[in-house]
Amino acid sequence: MLELANEACEACTSEDEPLVESEYAEYHTELRGDVWEVVDDHHLEATYNFEDFRDALEFTYEIGELAEEEWHHPDISLEWGEVNIEMWTHKIDGLHKTDFVMAARMDRIHKQYA
Amino acid sequence: MLELANEACEACTSEDEPLVESEYAEYHTELRGDVWEVVDDHHLEATYNFEDFRDALEFTYEIGELAEEEWHHPDISLEWGEVNIEMWTHKIDGLHKTDFVMAARMDRIHKQYA
Repeated sequence: MLELANEACEACTSEDEPLVESEYAEYHTELRGDVWEVVDDHHLEATYNFEDFRDALEFTYEIGELAEEEWHHPDISLEWGEVNIEMWTHKIDGLHKTDFVMAARMDRIHKQYA
Repeated sequence: MLELANEACEACTSEDEPLVESEYAEYHTELRGDVWEVVDDHHLEATYNFEDFRDALEFTYEIGELAEEEWHHPDISLEWGEVNIEMWTHKIDGLHKTDFVMAARMDRIHKQYA
């Protein structure tokens, strides 16, 4: 087990190349399969479900706090009972290990709302 | 002046008909013209701008609290420096005065972030 959620979010320098599938495949298997999808080898998309608006709102705020701590900011959409996330590393216009570490941490946060 | 933001959010019963333009036009003039648009006579759309992610996140949370208080829940999208809102009254599949009162209150909340 990689235990991705426990790893540090590495700073991404512009010298890094976006990950290709053979590189991110192992990270992807650590994420919740019913939540996270890699789209066009370019970004991660997630749909989290909740009981109501309140839980979706609190989760949004927690994810936002994580984004600020790690200085890595996804797009977040909030509606009744659902939060959608789009995330990639803008500096390299593609996926970095940090995106997968962030995703694993979001999975961990979401467990509180189950 | 209507001072829409100070009005109560009326409960919407399913007997109410969606507002038509001649009915909502006056409410619309009370909203920030650079933020709020009526789309297809059916819903309101807003784009609010912010200095950074933190302000956009805090605003999202405040709007979410308002939604819970009034039990009227818009869709909210949050990204760096921007919050987008879509709002209508699902029970009547269209616009109710409550949508405009909510919008006016969001304008008032946004002033704190200017």
